[in-house]
Amino acid sequence: MTQEGPFALGAADAARAIRDGKMTSEELVQGCLDRISAFEPTVQAWTHLSPEHALEQARAIDQRRYKGQEIGPMGGVPVGIKDIFDTVDFPTEYGSPIHKGRQTIDDASTVAQLRQAGAVIMGKTVTTEFAVYAPGKTTNPHDVSRTPGGSSSGSAAAVASFMVPLALGSQTNGSTIRPASFCGVVGYKPSFGLISRSGALRQSPPLDQVGVFARSVEDAGLMAQHIMHYDAQDAAMRPVAIPSLAQAATEMPPLPPSFAFVPSPAWDQAEPGTQEAFSELAEFLGDQVQRLALAEVYDEVFEWQRRVMEADLAKNFAADFDRAPDQISPQLTEMVERGRDVMAIDYNLGLDRQVAFERGLDEVFEDFDVILTPATQGEAPVGLDATGSPSFCTLWTFTGLPAITLPLMQGENDMPLGVQLVGKKGGDARLLRVASWLMAAVEAGDTKIDTA
Amino acid sequence: MTQEGPFALGAADAARAIRDGKMTSEELVQGCLDRISAFEPTVQAWTHLSPEHALEQARAIDQRRYKGQEIGPMGGVPVGIKDIFDTVDFPTEYGSPIHKGRQTIDDASTVAQLRQAGAVIMGKTVTTEFAVYAPGKTTNPHDVSRTPGGSSSGSAAAVASFMVPLALGSQTNGSTIRPASFCGVVGYKPSFGLISRSGALRQSPPLDQVGVFARSVEDAGLMAQHIMHYDAQDAAMRPVAIPSLAQAATEMPPLPPSFAFVPSPAWDQAEPGTQEAFSELAEFLGDQVQRLALAEVYDEVFEWQRRVMEADLAKNFAADFDRAPDQISPQLTEMVERGRDVMAIDYNLGLDRQVAFERGLDEVFEDFDVILTPATQGEAPVGLDATGSPSFCTLWTFTGLPAITLPLMQGENDMPLGVQLVGKKGGDARLLRVASWLMAAVEAGDTKIDTA
Repeated sequence: MTQEGPFALGAADAARAIRDGKMTSEELVQGCLDRISAFEPTVQAWTHLSPEHALEQARAIDQRRYKGQEIGPMGGVPVGIKDIFDTVDFPTEYGSPIHKGRQTIDDASTVAQLRQAGAVIMGKTVTTEFAVYAPGKTTNPHDVSRTPGGSSSGSAAAVASFMVPLALGSQTNGSTIRPASFCGVVGYKPSFGLISRSGALRQSPPLDQVGVFARSVEDAGLMAQHIMHYDAQDAAMRPVAIPSLAQAATEMPPLPPSFAFVPSPAWDQAEPGTQEAFSELAEFLGDQVQRLALAEVYDEVFEWQRRVMEADLAKNFAADFDRAPDQISPQLTEMVERGRDVMAIDYNLGLDRQVAFERGLDEVFEDFDVILTPATQGEAPVGLDATGSPSFCTLWTFTGLPAITLPLMQGENDMPLGVQLVGKKGGDARLLRVASWLMAAVEAGDTKIDTA
Repeated sequence: MTQEGPFALGAADAARAIRDGKMTSEELVQGCLDRISAFEPTVQAWTHLSPEHALEQARAIDQRRYKGQEIGPMGGVPVGIKDIFDTVDFPTEYGSPIHKGRQTIDDASTVAQLRQAGAVIMGKTVTTEFAVYAPGKTTNPHDVSRTPGGSSSGSAAAVASFMVPLALGSQTNGSTIRPASFCGVVGYKPSFGLISRSGALRQSPPLDQVGVFARSVEDAGLMAQHIMHYDAQDAAMRPVAIPSLAQAATEMPPLPPSFAFVPSPAWDQAEPGTQEAFSELAEFLGDQVQRLALAEVYDEVFEWQRRVMEADLAKNFAADFDRAPDQISPQLTEMVERGRDVMAIDYNLGLDRQVAFERGLDEVFEDFDVILTPATQGEAPVGLDATGSPSFCTLWTFTGLPAITLPLMQGENDMPLGVQLVGKKGGDARLLRVASWLMAAVEAGDTKIDTA
């Protein structure tokens, strides 16, 4: 893929160029629309797109700038929105035929924040069915025969193929980190409770989290920071100071950062190539990394996560099941059926485990800046009938820790392979600082760590 | 009962007298201890009491005052603590032999707040078993053959018999309002989320609420206000401004208040005497009251409440059951066994109902200042083997609305009968203002409304 022209700019650079009058938002959006025209037939990242509406928003931003008005920290930058976030100007269909044409009269909180920051809402990106497993139409931009990952398939693929510099996603288990790793972009899921879920599909409130896709840590920080906004409607939120993530991502840590290499409860599911790549990375980091085994109790996370999530799927999708059971995939049907059998006592014990596991992991961050761990079992699997496993994300999502995946590795088939960094809950700024450090360090050393 | 001497003072008056040097805390505490000596053999309100420790706290307050130091808004006033709140200076036994002698190293958040406000922690008051139904030893101060109500039995009885001017209680269903009504004192349960439950027995987090007992609205407001304090450990709390309840309770409403007489879903359980008394009260209020029927859907509240509470009892008392099933009452055993069978989906639908019911009731407060409704089915029942029904509290506790019961009525047997006022969620100050108005109005008119 060629990387020249406005479309190739990162979000922070593009916002600066527009603010400084070196480029118009219209030029940028037109450049991105051209990319979409060229690659969408293969990549299929979008469910709803209106070039004219995008250009109108861009021209309105340009007009504001001409008049000397404030255009916002993301002024004129196009963003893709996973089709589980409500938008006043596009339908929100949840990747399900049951909700075909569903139109809301409000934006999701995140979308409203993006507009307020000056972003151009480019369109809606493909999600798996109800943001669970059954795939949409999207392919992996690096290999059309492979899955882009899910559930935020379109968002990851759109950013990877330079159709937009930024996209919004979500993660209830591994739906941001996994597709970002498979598509070779930065995926960042902030700490639980920092971003409002109002107006987003409700899958499982104790687990649902918002994520962002970008091609650099700085851009991910920029977008995440500007969608963080206290919303009393989201019971998981607290009015806390919003971290300056865009700035943190451009800073270096005060000391060389320390990494706890935590193989994670999913380590035995990692492909040999992934295990090798991580050995190399550990070697590269030398003294700064230490291998850390978690207590066996953390292996139970998959079972607890499953109970909580499936019980919530059963409850929150009950109306859809009643309405159109035949329009729901066999996979989801099976999960909902299991979810109906979860006992309240087990569900609530699961919520207690979230706290207990988080507190247990908290100790790691007394000695280390971040946890280093694979983002996925390996490269994106061949085939478009599944979206891969979230197993390397389960523990961090369940505990609400901030996680970011960096496209620093390549697998045996030259497909991208993410390096996941996990931070202390609420320690998002430190996480992004270390992520930027690692990106720079690996770039200064070898170009890419691969298993060849 | 005689009502002369320091013990007969209300908390606000006593605090003023101590602050102004007209009485010492030691005199007040000694007066209360004398009352306890005289009436405790019959009333049996206390599980742990140390006269010497109480007098020591009182003398320390008096010393502070002599030195010109701040003694706090409740400086020198003795308070009883329901034996489900942790105290560093007394065991906290939850009314269960399983926890005999259980000693904590921290105070519950509420107890710490009371100490900070200058209160003297008098001792621990009797609770039913695990604050559920199985009665403790306490009797009704107005008739030894009758129940004081539960679960905050000792707190209600201690305040009613002038052993202390104030006591701390809790309410998961009707555990503050019911015993206050039966014992003829003011019971006040503030809006859900305004008082921390840290360090209190965990029965059911979506339902557990803290309540206070006093002999006047002003005193109830004084105590409630000073235990309200943002505590991030209690996930239900938000850092909001604390209402000036002590002051609100001494103010008159700007306009004559309007009452919605809501018979509540429990109306058909009200005894004829209660129904009659409320007819009289309605007549007394004339134009200011309007009868309002709730939609039938609110009748379901008992079933939803039961599911949520019992599922939580089953989970939170599981360790006790494993340890000593034979030391748990048949009643609680039955509830726990039912609770084990509650499905996660039904539990979570119950939590949704809490929000839906609260929003539905919210509309009432667009047209009325408060809801007027019985506190209990009738007078305290004869017999000490049960504590009466919480059915007139269930809806308001389930929805987290603030509720107060006023000892304004008498039943056929000259036993007290409470008038319950319920306010808009978060509208605690308005509720107390109206409560004070009603107390004054009834006192200015008839002395007591009775069914004779």
